[in-house]
Amino acid sequence: MMNMDAKSFISKTIKPALKNSPPGEWMPSITENCIRLNSGYPAPALVPDQELKAAVVRLLDEERDLPLHYLGSPHIDKLKEQIQDRLDERGMRVSKEELLVTSGACQAIDLIARILLDEESVVAIEAPTYMEALEIFRNYTNQYISIPVDEHGLQTDLLEKELEERKRTGLSLPRFLYTIPTFQNPTGTTLTLERRKHLLELASTYNFLIVEDDAYGELAFGESPETLKAMDKEGRVLHIGSLSKVVAPGMRIGWVAGASDFITTLCWFKKDLEHPFAHSTMATYLENIDFKVRLEMLKNTYREKCAVMLSALQENMPESVTWYVPKGGYFAWVRLPGVDTSELLEKAMAEGVAYIPGKHFFLDSVEGKEYLRLSFSYADEKEIGEGIKKLGKLIRK
Amino acid sequence: MMNMDAKSFISKTIKPALKNSPPGEWMPSITENCIRLNSGYPAPALVPDQELKAAVVRLLDEERDLPLHYLGSPHIDKLKEQIQDRLDERGMRVSKEELLVTSGACQAIDLIARILLDEESVVAIEAPTYMEALEIFRNYTNQYISIPVDEHGLQTDLLEKELEERKRTGLSLPRFLYTIPTFQNPTGTTLTLERRKHLLELASTYNFLIVEDDAYGELAFGESPETLKAMDKEGRVLHIGSLSKVVAPGMRIGWVAGASDFITTLCWFKKDLEHPFAHSTMATYLENIDFKVRLEMLKNTYREKCAVMLSALQENMPESVTWYVPKGGYFAWVRLPGVDTSELLEKAMAEGVAYIPGKHFFLDSVEGKEYLRLSFSYADEKEIGEGIKKLGKLIRK
Repeated sequence: MMNMDAKSFISKTIKPALKNSPPGEWMPSITENCIRLNSGYPAPALVPDQELKAAVVRLLDEERDLPLHYLGSPHIDKLKEQIQDRLDERGMRVSKEELLVTSGACQAIDLIARILLDEESVVAIEAPTYMEALEIFRNYTNQYISIPVDEHGLQTDLLEKELEERKRTGLSLPRFLYTIPTFQNPTGTTLTLERRKHLLELASTYNFLIVEDDAYGELAFGESPETLKAMDKEGRVLHIGSLSKVVAPGMRIGWVAGASDFITTLCWFKKDLEHPFAHSTMATYLENIDFKVRLEMLKNTYREKCAVMLSALQENMPESVTWYVPKGGYFAWVRLPGVDTSELLEKAMAEGVAYIPGKHFFLDSVEGKEYLRLSFSYADEKEIGEGIKKLGKLIRK
Repeated sequence: MMNMDAKSFISKTIKPALKNSPPGEWMPSITENCIRLNSGYPAPALVPDQELKAAVVRLLDEERDLPLHYLGSPHIDKLKEQIQDRLDERGMRVSKEELLVTSGACQAIDLIARILLDEESVVAIEAPTYMEALEIFRNYTNQYISIPVDEHGLQTDLLEKELEERKRTGLSLPRFLYTIPTFQNPTGTTLTLERRKHLLELASTYNFLIVEDDAYGELAFGESPETLKAMDKEGRVLHIGSLSKVVAPGMRIGWVAGASDFITTLCWFKKDLEHPFAHSTMATYLENIDFKVRLEMLKNTYREKCAVMLSALQENMPESVTWYVPKGGYFAWVRLPGVDTSELLEKAMAEGVAYIPGKHFFLDSVEGKEYLRLSFSYADEKEIGEGIKKLGKLIRK
């Protein structure tokens, strides 16, 4: 039904940024009935479906149509206060004007990219990093500074060298650095306190912003480290949070906390408006439960599942295989020297276990060939043990 | 807490488009306890809160955690099919690849603007038009062609003149025209069949796209007219729909139907992902009810409320006051010659009745000074009668 003229018009009028680069390599599709060490979301048993149902029932019985209009439910504001309280507990005091509730962390990243990036802009990213963030940035620019992560997180000394070199040679400095400093996706690593301080100094010296994605920050096996936002004295940190990992991803609730000028501008661009039903359901749910108790339960569960995974790795992997030991979050990052993990995946799925090949977390898919991401969030302890055993066998072949 | 350097950095790095024009004049804030002839949303009694509650209960009992993950609930796909069926019934056959579910019509408009507009682009709009759409376009460009609406909708002869003149003098032609052809917001008018044909011809001749916002299209007092999308033979129409007016705005469910190339590109930019909980709740609700029966009820109710409003206008307004007679939708558009409706609003609210001054629906707020928008969607019949009476008294003074 598409006239050729209109078709060529569309392809001509679509913004040039879109043509910068094709989307990254598609994620492999995972065979059903595999042990899902690939899935970066909570286990069914950890999703509070019945509590959310109870929240909807209470909300709609008490407020009737209010949460179903554009505005009106007092619970819409309450969600914002609940998020403020949780940030406050972690040393981040933000006013209402410094907080925007978004549809998950993804919308937060996208809104920030929309405000700050054009084709001229450079973004600094971690290698490896969250693949959805890469997809988002690709819509706006194809200029990146990619800084490797080691077991202590982003290598800030390498970032400093790159910035120095760019300044010396007159190359553009980054508009912002996107980082997941705590229990990073995909490596599970955590930026040390020393490197956190160094990073904030660099941002000040070279005048860039820091986008701190803290989606996993609360899921510490011990204490959560201090956030960059809490340490920031200059208003350079835009802090992104989410309820996807601690409540349920399908509710699509995240946020950005940052300087009020910035938040106001993000609001202008957030044209899907508030989501009254989702927001007031979540607020009612949070009101109904003791969140600290829930968080303790989650931390204990993930700590235990991670321990099962690490001891299974120890038991089943040949000596050449190495991994980082996570202190929280969802993921372990494993290196298989000399193995192409994309090729291995097909065989692994035939054996009934799935993971994500490392290349999907890099800008340049040649990197990460020997790595894979394992998630201990979705599968149960028994499955985790079995899955790693299957993988170990396969690798030893 | 904001260092001046970081502050000036933010203001320097925010995209230039943002500085094009300040947001339009803020909507007046409406005093509580007024009769709300301003509100463009459904009456409390017309919002199916208990049915939506029942849908959540059924959904979460049957599917447990599935609708609370990123993917997984079969009801996510079902919603898409239900929307396809409804479009089909109105003569628009679209495939899955030609349909994107959005967070309300607003996100649909914004996504289209993101793909098609930059600072060089011209947008053609109706005068008056939906104010949120104006706010959205202002984020991208400040170049508009503004074409007046009369009682038969957009004046396509004036559009043709403008296009001819632009072509002759080498001025840019519009990338797209944004129109609400059926039961327009704010005028309540409907584009005639003859003008619909003319508009499609113009789009073909001058090679632009048509963004058809059909948020009110199903709420006809008689028959809904054929949509531009149904008449389109060249793939030039992007059709926007919404469940906000026929179910509940707080669910934030809308869509765009258009050429698949276009929809694919919109998907890349829609970074708030799917909304599994909202989408599967809505799909379950639609499965539980007979939508045709609901629509009949809504049409009867709004027809009746509109009739009450029109006869109250007839009875209470001085002869100089005129209005268009709507054939569906939510709104009546009233002209008060010589009266500044923004000034009048304060007095009206003091008397206990609210409306929206006409200027808020125009790019240039000097236009529309003598007009006001009345909504018969929210207030009940008794309130509508009383409200118009109060207004009439005030105007006669």
